[in-house]
Amino acid sequence: MMQRYKSIISYDGSGFSGYQVQPNKRTVQSELEAVLAKMHKGKPIKVSASGRTDAGVHAKGQVIHFDSPLPISEEKWEIALNSLLPVDISVLSVIKVDSSFHARFDARGKEYHYVLQLSKKRDPFQRHFAYQYPYSLNLEAMMQASRHFIGTHDFTSFCSAKTEVEDRIRTIETIDFFLDGDFLTLRFVGNGFLYNMVRILTGTLIEVGTGKRKPEQMVDILGEKDRRVAGKTAPSQGLYLWKVFYD
Amino acid sequence: MMQRYKSIISYDGSGFSGYQVQPNKRTVQSELEAVLAKMHKGKPIKVSASGRTDAGVHAKGQVIHFDSPLPISEEKWEIALNSLLPVDISVLSVIKVDSSFHARFDARGKEYHYVLQLSKKRDPFQRHFAYQYPYSLNLEAMMQASRHFIGTHDFTSFCSAKTEVEDRIRTIETIDFFLDGDFLTLRFVGNGFLYNMVRILTGTLIEVGTGKRKPEQMVDILGEKDRRVAGKTAPSQGLYLWKVFYD
Repeated sequence: MMQRYKSIISYDGSGFSGYQVQPNKRTVQSELEAVLAKMHKGKPIKVSASGRTDAGVHAKGQVIHFDSPLPISEEKWEIALNSLLPVDISVLSVIKVDSSFHARFDARGKEYHYVLQLSKKRDPFQRHFAYQYPYSLNLEAMMQASRHFIGTHDFTSFCSAKTEVEDRIRTIETIDFFLDGDFLTLRFVGNGFLYNMVRILTGTLIEVGTGKRKPEQMVDILGEKDRRVAGKTAPSQGLYLWKVFYD
Repeated sequence: MMQRYKSIISYDGSGFSGYQVQPNKRTVQSELEAVLAKMHKGKPIKVSASGRTDAGVHAKGQVIHFDSPLPISEEKWEIALNSLLPVDISVLSVIKVDSSFHARFDARGKEYHYVLQLSKKRDPFQRHFAYQYPYSLNLEAMMQASRHFIGTHDFTSFCSAKTEVEDRIRTIETIDFFLDGDFLTLRFVGNGFLYNMVRILTGTLIEVGTGKRKPEQMVDILGEKDRRVAGKTAPSQGLYLWKVFYD
């Protein structure tokens, strides 16, 4: 009998061409599916995630689901997957769920963190894990600007022009700022995020921090519904899919 | 006219076969010398360090020196080297020193950190930067054991059997323990450390932490002067050359 499993996984995105399977590329999904196929004697097992992550983007709490007929306990699944997966993917938990559960369609919200290292010196230990930013930032202005994004808006200006979804209305619940030594973390919580949305929001907030844009301009940028009026896309290595919320 | 420069550098050791030049291997020294040769139109410039680090071992404050006839300011040296070096090596400072200065022979002491991640779950972000240790450790016993190493001792039991230096007497000033969340850091300060000494001290202290050895046995192990009686060598990825002290 088939059983559906929900699993929380973490990965260092620096060695992957993103989450989703692509021909001849090392991706998180292809590593997961290769391990599951091996456990099922070559039978392909499809893995569904809460959403994709781009090349270089990390996950602290990505959620996936898959179906299996193997009579294995939740604990044994966790041990088996971790022993077979490469060291840059870790399975944090595996639980049995109803076959109606879907990692993507049931997700009610997501939390992303974007980490900047505010330092003039290159830090070789952080090159894959934070965006090193050597110029000073006006955090007060960035926080003021971020308040314009809270609530329900059409985020067309803040998603990649390649975005195919029609409905670009999303609700952002909170954008918090944490400063710890050199590290500035922007924490985004919302009901969903469009393609590149957190990175474009971050890139635009950085431009507010440098004084290139004013906080109140965020209203106009939202209103324009045009990717070209927002700021640059912040680089992938600072982004972490932190948590996915379900009912 | 030749000028001697002292430079403090940091590197992520995970991509190097150690500090020292080896044929057909990527090493920190060979990267540094390749960049200096490029800056000197192919003329080889020898780089001397405070000491070697093994494959996988990191440096937060390795010290090197080199000589150059180029009329470049200290700040410009730092900028030039950082722009030419690979991203896993960072130059933190460059200063002019007297031609009698020697990074190795003038070093009066060193500080090493050994980082353990006390966690049952694999952390893909720490696999190169800490030794993940899933079993519980008696820190009180480890601290008690560490006190036997303070002072001047013959550390033959705590260096690789391959060590070629005759004089294995070293002075350890402090061994401090820091617990921060999952991370246990052992901080070693002393006048010098033999080959693999910090890793063997750490491996032996871990065996005290698990109850395999008693704190007072450290006295006997020192007395035996035999590598085989000490504990295992802790893995390289947890070790950081933190600082080198000069007069």
